Amino acid sequence: MRFEHDLLGEIEVPDHAYYGVQTLRAMQNFKITGQRLDTDFIDSLAIVKKAAAKANMATGRLDKAVGTVLVAAADEIISGKLHDQFCVDPIQGGAGTSVNMNMNEVLSNRALELLGDQKGNYTRISPNNHANMAQSTNDAFPTAIKVCAVRKGRFLVQALRTLAQALDEKAAEFKDVLKMGRTHLQDAVPITLGQEFAAYASAVRRGAGRIEDVLQRLYAVNMGATAVGTGLNAEPAYIREVARQLAELTGEPFATAENLVDATNNTDAFADMSGALKVTALALIKMANDFRLMASGPRCGLNELALPPRQPGSSIMPGKVNPVIPEVLNQTCYQVIGNDLAVTLGVENGQFELNVMEPVVAFNIFNSLTYLTNAVNTFNQLCVQGVQAQREQCAQWLERSVGIVTALLPHIGYENSSRLAEEAYKTGQPVRELILKKKLLTKEEMDMILSPEKMTQPGIAGKKLVNM
Amino acid sequence: MRFEHDLLGEIEVPDHAYYGVQTLRAMQNFKITGQRLDTDFIDSLAIVKKAAAKANMATGRLDKAVGTVLVAAADEIISGKLHDQFCVDPIQGGAGTSVNMNMNEVLSNRALELLGDQKGNYTRISPNNHANMAQSTNDAFPTAIKVCAVRKGRFLVQALRTLAQALDEKAAEFKDVLKMGRTHLQDAVPITLGQEFAAYASAVRRGAGRIEDVLQRLYAVNMGATAVGTGLNAEPAYIREVARQLAELTGEPFATAENLVDATNNTDAFADMSGALKVTALALIKMANDFRLMASGPRCGLNELALPPRQPGSSIMPGKVNPVIPEVLNQTCYQVIGNDLAVTLGVENGQFELNVMEPVVAFNIFNSLTYLTNAVNTFNQLCVQGVQAQREQCAQWLERSVGIVTALLPHIGYENSSRLAEEAYKTGQPVRELILKKKLLTKEEMDMILSPEKMTQPGIAGKKLVNM
Amino acid sequence: MRFEHDLLGEIEVPDHAYYGVQTLRAMQNFKITGQRLDTDFIDSLAIVKKAAAKANMATGRLDKAVGTVLVAAADEIISGKLHDQFCVDPIQGGAGTSVNMNMNEVLSNRALELLGDQKGNYTRISPNNHANMAQSTNDAFPTAIKVCAVRKGRFLVQALRTLAQALDEKAAEFKDVLKMGRTHLQDAVPITLGQEFAAYASAVRRGAGRIEDVLQRLYAVNMGATAVGTGLNAEPAYIREVARQLAELTGEPFATAENLVDATNNTDAFADMSGALKVTALALIKMANDFRLMASGPRCGLNELALPPRQPGSSIMPGKVNPVIPEVLNQTCYQVIGNDLAVTLGVENGQFELNVMEPVVAFNIFNSLTYLTNAVNTFNQLCVQGVQAQREQCAQWLERSVGIVTALLPHIGYENSSRLAEEAYKTGQPVRELILKKKLLTKEEMDMILSPEKMTQPGIAGKKLVNM
Amino acid sequence: MRFEHDLLGEIEVPDHAYYGVQTLRAMQNFKITGQRLDTDFIDSLAIVKKAAAKANMATGRLDKAVGTVLVAAADEIISGKLHDQFCVDPIQGGAGTSVNMNMNEVLSNRALELLGDQKGNYTRISPNNHANMAQSTNDAFPTAIKVCAVRKGRFLVQALRTLAQALDEKAAEFKDVLKMGRTHLQDAVPITLGQEFAAYASAVRRGAGRIEDVLQRLYAVNMGATAVGTGLNAEPAYIREVARQLAELTGEPFATAENLVDATNNTDAFADMSGALKVTALALIKMANDFRLMASGPRCGLNELALPPRQPGSSIMPGKVNPVIPEVLNQTCYQVIGNDLAVTLGVENGQFELNVMEPVVAFNIFNSLTYLTNAVNTFNQLCVQGVQAQREQCAQWLERSVGIVTALLPHIGYENSSRLAEEAYKTGQPVRELILKKKLLTKEEMDMILSPEKMTQPGIAGKKLVNM
Repeated sequence: MRFEHDLLGEIEVPDHAYYGVQTLRAMQNFKITGQRLDTDFIDSLAIVKKAAAKANMATGRLDKAVGTVLVAAADEIISGKLHDQFCVDPIQGGAGTSVNMNMNEVLSNRALELLGDQKGNYTRISPNNHANMAQSTNDAFPTAIKVCAVRKGRFLVQALRTLAQALDEKAAEFKDVLKMGRTHLQDAVPITLGQEFAAYASAVRRGAGRIEDVLQRLYAVNMGATAVGTGLNAEPAYIREVARQLAELTGEPFATAENLVDATNNTDAFADMSGALKVTALALIKMANDFRLMASGPRCGLNELALPPRQPGSSIMPGKVNPVIPEVLNQTCYQVIGNDLAVTLGVENGQFELNVMEPVVAFNIFNSLTYLTNAVNTFNQLCVQGVQAQREQCAQWLERSVGIVTALLPHIGYENSSRLAEEAYKTGQPVRELILKKKLLTKEEMDMILSPEKMTQPGIAGKKLVNM
Repeated sequence: MRFEHDLLGEIEVPDHAYYGVQTLRAMQNFKITGQRLDTDFIDSLAIVKKAAAKANMATGRLDKAVGTVLVAAADEIISGKLHDQFCVDPIQGGAGTSVNMNMNEVLSNRALELLGDQKGNYTRISPNNHANMAQSTNDAFPTAIKVCAVRKGRFLVQALRTLAQALDEKAAEFKDVLKMGRTHLQDAVPITLGQEFAAYASAVRRGAGRIEDVLQRLYAVNMGATAVGTGLNAEPAYIREVARQLAELTGEPFATAENLVDATNNTDAFADMSGALKVTALALIKMANDFRLMASGPRCGLNELALPPRQPGSSIMPGKVNPVIPEVLNQTCYQVIGNDLAVTLGVENGQFELNVMEPVVAFNIFNSLTYLTNAVNTFNQLCVQGVQAQREQCAQWLERSVGIVTALLPHIGYENSSRLAEEAYKTGQPVRELILKKKLLTKEEMDMILSPEKMTQPGIAGKKLVNM
Repeated sequence: MRFEHDLLGEIEVPDHAYYGVQTLRAMQNFKITGQRLDTDFIDSLAIVKKAAAKANMATGRLDKAVGTVLVAAADEIISGKLHDQFCVDPIQGGAGTSVNMNMNEVLSNRALELLGDQKGNYTRISPNNHANMAQSTNDAFPTAIKVCAVRKGRFLVQALRTLAQALDEKAAEFKDVLKMGRTHLQDAVPITLGQEFAAYASAVRRGAGRIEDVLQRLYAVNMGATAVGTGLNAEPAYIREVARQLAELTGEPFATAENLVDATNNTDAFADMSGALKVTALALIKMANDFRLMASGPRCGLNELALPPRQPGSSIMPGKVNPVIPEVLNQTCYQVIGNDLAVTLGVENGQFELNVMEPVVAFNIFNSLTYLTNAVNTFNQLCVQGVQAQREQCAQWLERSVGIVTALLPHIGYENSSRLAEEAYKTGQPVRELILKKKLLTKEEMDMILSPEKMTQPGIAGKKLVNM
Repeated sequence: MRFEHDLLGEIEVPDHAYYGVQTLRAMQNFKITGQRLDTDFIDSLAIVKKAAAKANMATGRLDKAVGTVLVAAADEIISGKLHDQFCVDPIQGGAGTSVNMNMNEVLSNRALELLGDQKGNYTRISPNNHANMAQSTNDAFPTAIKVCAVRKGRFLVQALRTLAQALDEKAAEFKDVLKMGRTHLQDAVPITLGQEFAAYASAVRRGAGRIEDVLQRLYAVNMGATAVGTGLNAEPAYIREVARQLAELTGEPFATAENLVDATNNTDAFADMSGALKVTALALIKMANDFRLMASGPRCGLNELALPPRQPGSSIMPGKVNPVIPEVLNQTCYQVIGNDLAVTLGVENGQFELNVMEPVVAFNIFNSLTYLTNAVNTFNQLCVQGVQAQREQCAQWLERSVGIVTALLPHIGYENSSRLAEEAYKTGQPVRELILKKKLLTKEEMDMILSPEKMTQPGIAGKKLVNM
């Protein structure tokens, strides 16, 4: 047991603890979610601290001996050690001060230990004076959020690109699977299953691009802004160097924001990030819904797609297999959209020089990124890669359809085509038979015009027959 | 042209205008939506003013001659006149002061005219001193919102009850239409179309009850709270009387809130109202989606339900008819849910003695109530009342299904039933044939157990066969 | 190691595991959040299973020897044992089948063990045939959600009532603290700090009532509905008994829903629950914001309220103490509102006989209930109970204010009062001085009218002076 | 009166009407909002139709005589004529078919009239065959939404840039207004009002850039996709030409989407647009809130900013002036955020080849763009341009503050500074006095370090005094 104190008084700290008094205060104050800090985020903050220590050594303000052990301690954390020392609840008051001080305390105590000193000897290495030198929570914390969001964002981009690739492969496989296109869930005109999968791939790839675009908005960091963005206690040389270090340590083009006051006051970049996740989720929902619709049945539904079975579908209905993977993708996307609203509310409530709601913003962005990456990878590996076309069923639907009359439009006009369709629906007679019976076209003309294959490509089927 | 002034100076008012300087200021300040105030809301505020005038006369503070013409002016507005005099944008700053003053000015000027006097002679009848006597925008405005929301809420309840009734009638009509039940869009076990429609009716009726419940939360009004809820300038006798008048004029049990400060500070009752609309919308969405799924096809979909055709479905695809009425119900519900978020944000942002965001809250509640009532009535009249079951198709699906093996569970267990289902799927053989071939049951036993009709009611089909 | 199989084949199960093949499938399929099931929810589902086993014994369908050990196993879980055996991710496809089967497997294997048998001997006690007898995930799972939500809801109600009580105590303590009331953040008219706290108490108490009201909507359960609500394989006697058992085991008035198909199809009761949390959160946000505004300063803000200091406020600014407890309440409320949107989306997406999105709905409702209860208790214990009025500061503000001219309205009219206020603002002269200087009132009259104390109660100050 | 018919039968059309049977069907079917179509949207659709007619003439499919009058009719609409002929409700089923056919009918009938023919003679010029040639609602409608959103987006960008410019001018004006910076609403360290305004300008300008970025996502149009994206009935030459025409007619780089199926199925670009509005709204809310906080008072609040008075603030409190313009900006932003959720839900619910919810998506995007542009212009003209600094008050706050001890951190460390701050708070003594009394620094050193001006710039005040 050792004793530490802050402006509220003295407190007992367990011997084994690398954290100190301020972490303990926070543990008592914030018992909300019972969850732990995201480990990527712990690492990201350690990277920020390392960059700051190196910059402070570079400007000469931080003693090399102290700086070197602080960097060493940060490296240990980045390599996965000491993660159990981060005990503050992710939803917390104080705008992240408790996270920042948790890190400052762990770094200082581990650094002291590396020097052979005792934990708690803050006169030698102080959480506030050394680990936090030239920093404020108000710059270190949001910068670490950005580092973490970029890191996680890269994983999501990778997951989306891999999914798009798998969808494209399926699109090639399903290139010649003609099927009925549907709008309003009503029979429309022919399309290929390959075209549908290529469209999914395209939308998913656009999602990847959207995330990449939004990462750009995260590169402007406010290190050096300190308390309110004015840079008090942070020298220009340090400000330049810390951004350079951050870019070097992460391999990402982090740079000092043009306006540090703005970058400290405003958190719209986080809303941009979360918003990009939301929109991407919307396209994934649409795809998952289509999968579930096409896999409906197997006997009493569309049955155009066979999803790989993943588990028995029911505790009561024997033999049932459900589309559990698209379903979990759907639900993850709902979570992402819900989280985006929490982010929205957090970002809404900045005041003056700071947005104190950053912890809940970070919590939701990290969860969304993690969950969505997992769900996208799951969907790819456990669903898309094993999906099969029900070719026969697709063909049967198409054969029964009336919607192919649309191809007659350039030849006999909207009204005549409408009447033909109506009669087909009412009598149940195939469209082709009716055309011949009514002598609207010769058999040869009809075959040229009513070719489903041609109807899936731009152009007017049987164009040479049109008088134009 | 006449001249009026306020603390900002003098301004020209057109002769014909019953509104005055403060309305003109607001017209210049708030050019946001270009929309007009809801007419029910204008009427509701006039009712509030009438109640206040009568209460002020009753306590003797308001001269009878003046009060009488103010009441007469209010009655004209309630009867639909002078609505063109309400020119302020529904989204406005000032917490509704501009709406309140627009009303006070119109009332005063019309009252002056009724006395044979000139508009603008505010020494005789003043918008602030007489029309607004013992009131503040901060009590009159939210009270009028409540009056209006109750009025509109009644229409919605009526619309929902009528829809539930129509659905129940269809449930009776479809009582014996056996069809395949579906969970996860996968074939499950039999159900009747009548059972499905009865469930829709039940959910819609619950929606009506939910709205009625939430109206209870609107009856506590803060008339007499005046500026900050303390009742400054409002005498206890007036406070009692104005609530009594309001209840009498509306026929609704409006009453003075228990804590006037709370009732002035907090607007959670509006969030309750909007939230009830949101939840009701969710049940409507589910029903509309089911309608669209069941009506899918007609040739390449489920085709279990025939919706009454309402308009040609496509500008390019002849003969196409789309489920436009469920679609418009869906979209209206999305609007209601979006509006609920605007309400949520408005309610979130009260501060100290008042929530100045009430105008946007009211705007969204009124729109949601109006749109949803219209959409529910439209759905009832243009869709539900004309909907037909596709009985033959329902029967065909059921015949093809495998899910009926669930009824075998109490007889041969989950695993044997699973194996049977699997074989049926793989070979395409009907379940009944397989059962007989494998001698799992006699024909007689099987018919007793696998009766779709029995499967739609609680109990174990062929129970006496079970060894229990 | 033992081997278990399902329709997808055989799989190795670790010897120590009480769960079986279906849990393992789910663990492989759903790696989304990395979180565990809520322990209250595990207990709640065990209660549902216990009720079902007892009902099945009562109807004679379940062998007593088997039923007794299933009940014993359920009791162990309810008492906190075996929680580590619940390994499926809370966000999952399959509408909760994996949770339900996880429970069925643990119950069966523990029951077998209690009989001295080996885990996995499902011919004797089967997860599907015995633990799940007369049930489907589609009734057991949503019923367990309701049991859990009621249980957690009770804790929240308790937390809110306790907070309201604490606020009322502070209201009594601050009864005579006169302060400036503010609307639009602008000086309005006097109020007491006690009145403000009483209003907070009133709003919080209304929140408790709102939650209690919404619990009513959760009591209608669909046990006996089985797969699609029709009650297939569930006998009427069982249906009656299982609801009775559930009510008895929980002490809450759970009862069979009137329409089991509706109760299986529709999940609007969950949206009601979540919506009630959202609205309650809005009132809490408003209160927390007021606390932060009143505690602003201490030197450069309103400084009307001294919050108990809880931790150093800044890593860089010495001596700073921030309102971290109201801040964490704010953020928790944002999370609750975000979660409500995830619930909204889940509830929106039911189709036909089931809403397969129930897992994400449950996940968010449970999190919201837990977090909000924690935050409310935190706010009460770490903030409200220690809050102090800055009486001197409150008095100083009031003294400086001009808003007291409102009390002159019944005496000298709106316009004269306006002019007086204007002059006071412009010249900086106190209102009282101006009144005397302009001889608007005698000193005696003025003192009677401009009494801040009187201005905080209904009525017209100096009424007898008014000519009425 | 003339008679027109469609597949549902014959209907009377008023003689004066340029619209026809399909518009009338829609008017009967969709009575939801009672609102009119956005006039920019009518114009945008007319531009799309004009582009299509020109492209159809270019490929030789459309007779020049007919094409020429269709173009002339479109030009009339674009110039503002015939807008009263667009009568369908903006929230409608049918995925915009009714809007598209309303336009096709008006164009055809006006074109017939221009040829000297009678309205309704559709054998000569047909809404479906000529006005809609090579088009479907499914390409023309979303393309028109994009044209309209770009047009309106440009206005918003302009409004935001103008606002940023005004804020920058104020930043220059307030460059030397030293004030207390605040985080957590608690006194932090000095900043200038100019720095704050420059930060607002920066955030607003970033908003303009965000909107411009998202316009990029709207340029990919699906003209030529026709019904389901496959291009049925649209020749490649036409597809190329119609995009070229669209770009030319609008002066915006519209181009054919790379994947027309994707571009027809997916509407995520609209969610991108709406999301950009939402995030921009969040930054505006923060700024408006700051304005309201700084303008709080005037006697009992911060009173750092004097907003230009715009209207009397209260119906009961004389002399009160409220920050009505920031308030209306706030509320408009809430509406934009609510609308974004309606858009989100619309985009979520696409299925297969089309998203039939496009009408509600368009309705909300257009409203958000219009309202937000209006509110931004209002805020600029009626608030920012007239805002004044309360210099004296700002100085007074700063003088009283303790937060300046932060500048001592590099000199005496965190703990000593903390103790100093604590003593200052407790005793009420100025920090400077305490420093001298405790002989922590000489007067000369202190003046060098505790210069508020220096504290608003990066660097360590009194650096040369630090031993480093």
